[in-house]
Amino acid sequence: VSVKVILWGMGEMAKGMAKMILEKKGLELVGAIAKRKEKQDMDLGTAIGLDRKLGILVECDAAKVLAKTKRAVVLHSTNSFVSSVCGELEQALNAGHDIITIAEEMIYPWASAPEVAQKLDRVAKGSGVSLLGTGINPGFIMDTFVIALTGVCASVDKITVTRINDLGSFGPTVMRTQGIGKSVREFEDGVAAGRIVGHIGFKESISLISSSLGWKLDEIVQSREPIIARSERVTPFIRVPAGKVVGCKHIAEGKMNGRVVIRLEHPQQIRPEVDGVLTGDCIVIQGIPNIRLNINPEVPGSIGTIAIAVNMIPRVFEARPGLVTMADLPLPSAIPDDFAGFFQADKLEGFVD
Amino acid sequence: VSVKVILWGMGEMAKGMAKMILEKKGLELVGAIAKRKEKQDMDLGTAIGLDRKLGILVECDAAKVLAKTKRAVVLHSTNSFVSSVCGELEQALNAGHDIITIAEEMIYPWASAPEVAQKLDRVAKGSGVSLLGTGINPGFIMDTFVIALTGVCASVDKITVTRINDLGSFGPTVMRTQGIGKSVREFEDGVAAGRIVGHIGFKESISLISSSLGWKLDEIVQSREPIIARSERVTPFIRVPAGKVVGCKHIAEGKMNGRVVIRLEHPQQIRPEVDGVLTGDCIVIQGIPNIRLNINPEVPGSIGTIAIAVNMIPRVFEARPGLVTMADLPLPSAIPDDFAGFFQADKLEGFVD
Repeated sequence: VSVKVILWGMGEMAKGMAKMILEKKGLELVGAIAKRKEKQDMDLGTAIGLDRKLGILVECDAAKVLAKTKRAVVLHSTNSFVSSVCGELEQALNAGHDIITIAEEMIYPWASAPEVAQKLDRVAKGSGVSLLGTGINPGFIMDTFVIALTGVCASVDKITVTRINDLGSFGPTVMRTQGIGKSVREFEDGVAAGRIVGHIGFKESISLISSSLGWKLDEIVQSREPIIARSERVTPFIRVPAGKVVGCKHIAEGKMNGRVVIRLEHPQQIRPEVDGVLTGDCIVIQGIPNIRLNINPEVPGSIGTIAIAVNMIPRVFEARPGLVTMADLPLPSAIPDDFAGFFQADKLEGFVD
Repeated sequence: VSVKVILWGMGEMAKGMAKMILEKKGLELVGAIAKRKEKQDMDLGTAIGLDRKLGILVECDAAKVLAKTKRAVVLHSTNSFVSSVCGELEQALNAGHDIITIAEEMIYPWASAPEVAQKLDRVAKGSGVSLLGTGINPGFIMDTFVIALTGVCASVDKITVTRINDLGSFGPTVMRTQGIGKSVREFEDGVAAGRIVGHIGFKESISLISSSLGWKLDEIVQSREPIIARSERVTPFIRVPAGKVVGCKHIAEGKMNGRVVIRLEHPQQIRPEVDGVLTGDCIVIQGIPNIRLNINPEVPGSIGTIAIAVNMIPRVFEARPGLVTMADLPLPSAIPDDFAGFFQADKLEGFVD
C-alpha cells in the first residue's frame, strides 16, 4: 500500500523531499509541478539531481498534474506568503488533494490573512481534504515544539526562544535579504525600505503559541538589528570585513496587558563561530516550573523542513477536513522506514489504485 | 462554562492537581475519592492542605462519587500498575467519565497487559469516553517529547535519552525502592529479589516510541546498577557514607535486528551535585540530522506530572472514545488561565449543568 504524493514546486526543499520519499516504503511520487519552463518534461530523477530516471515527467501545467491522480498528498513549496500561494492551494484542494505546504505564513494564516484562511478552510472542507502548513521554522522549533514543552507547566509567565544559526552555506539571495555585507547605515535603510526582511513567520509562530495557550495578545512588535562583525568573516559567497553587517538579528515580541509574554529572537548570520558565537536553539520558559532547553548545534533548517513536511503526511491524511495547524494534529514523528502502516485502511479509498 | 473534575486518589500528586485546578477558570472540582478511611468526609480543602473549605467532602465510596455527576473527567492517581488500577479505571469508564491516569504502566498498557488494554479500550468506547495515561516520566520527557523531536528527522538510527534527577527531597519509601544507603551487595540482592525496582515505565516509554516510529523491536532489556557515593551525601532523611549506594541507575534498551535502537538511562540518586553530577534531561538522536538536546536542570518530576495531567483535560475531552496515548492526541500545551475556551460547545452536553 502506497499513498500518492505530488510535488508542487521544484526548488531545493522539493528536491530534498523527493529524495527522502524515494528512501521510504508506503509513499509513491506520482507527479511534479514546476514553474520554470525549462523543467517541462524533464524526468523527475534528473530534476532532483539523481543519475537515474524515475519515469515521472515534470510539468508546468499544474491543472494537468492535479487531474491525473484522483487523490494525493501535495507537498507544496513555491513561495513564503499566503497572498502568493493561496490560489495554488485552492486549486489543489479543489482537485481533491490533501496539502502540506512549507509556505511560512501558512503555519498560521489567520495571523496575516484571516479571510483567506477562512476561505481555504471552507474549500478544504468542501473537498473533504486537509491543508497544513509546516516547516522547521516557522512550524516547529520556535512554536510547535515550544507549545509541547509548556505542557509540563502549571503556569507560564514568559516564553523566550532564541535560534542562532549559520547562513554560511547560502548564496547571494539570502545575503541580500539579510543585509549581509552592508554597512550599518545601508542595513537600516534596507530594513526601512523592506528590502532586508530577516525571518519570515514570527507573527505566525507567536500567534500559534498564544492561541494554543489561550492568550489574547495586545500586539506583536518586531525589530531587525544588524549583527556587526568583530572579525572578518568569509564564506564561499561573500567576504565581510570587521565593522560591516554579517547578519540580521530579528526579534519579535508578543505583548499581553502591556507585558512581553513571548519573545522570539533569530540572529541569522554567516559564520558566527568566528566571533565566538555558538549556534543553537534555546527555549526558556519562565513559569512553574522554570525550564531551560538547549539544542546545540541548532536543528539544521533545510533537512528539518524537508523531514517534517514528509513526516506529517500520515497526520494530514488522518486529519479532519479543513485548514489545520501543527497544534491541531497528533505529535509529529519520524517514520524511519515504512509509512504504509500509518495509513488506516478505511481512509485509503481513492488514494490507492 | 466549567468542566467537572473528580479526583481519584488523594496522594501528593492529587493534592497538587487540586491546587492547580483551583487556580484555573473553566474547571470545577466536584468530587474526591480516597482510599484511607480517615479521610472520609474530610473537606477537600483540608485534605489538600488549604486553610479554607471547598464544600466538597472526600469519600471512600468510589461508586457514590462517580454516580453523583453525570459526566466528568476523572484524574486518577492511586497506583503505578495496570493490574492494580484496571478495576478502578473500568468502574469510572462504566460510570461515563473520561479518565486521565498517572499510573505509569497506563501510558502504554499494551506493553505489559495487552488483554487488559483491549478490554479498557472496549469499555471506554462502549461508554463513549476516553482514557489516557500521562505523566512527566513515563508520559512525556523520555517518550512523548522525544517522539515530537524526531519529527524533524529524515531518518533515525538510534535514540538515547538520559534523565538525571535528585531524590534528595524524598522520604523512606523512595530510599528503600531505590536501594539508597545499601551496600553494593545488598543492592544487588535487592534488585534480584524485586525489592529495589528503580524506575517504573521504561518498557512503556520504549514501546510508545517504537510504535510511533513504526519500529518492530525484538526485545527490551533492562538493568539496574548501583550508583556509589564518592563522597558522603546527606539529606533530611538519610546519610550515606562514601562507598555505599546513593541511587539506582536504571537502563532500558530496545533492540531491533539485534542492534540497540532506543536506550533510556535514568540514574536516580540523592544529591548528585556532591559528586559533581549535574541534573538534567538529555536527548540524543543519531540520524539525519543528528540532534543533541539538553534541559538543565531536569524538568522537575512532581510538578511536571501534576501539570501535564491537568493540561491534558481538554485533549481527553476532545479525543475519540477509547484508550488513547499521548502520541494519538494533539500536542500538549499549558493553559495558563482559562480552560473554558478549549472545550467545544457541542461536546459539553452532559458535562455542565
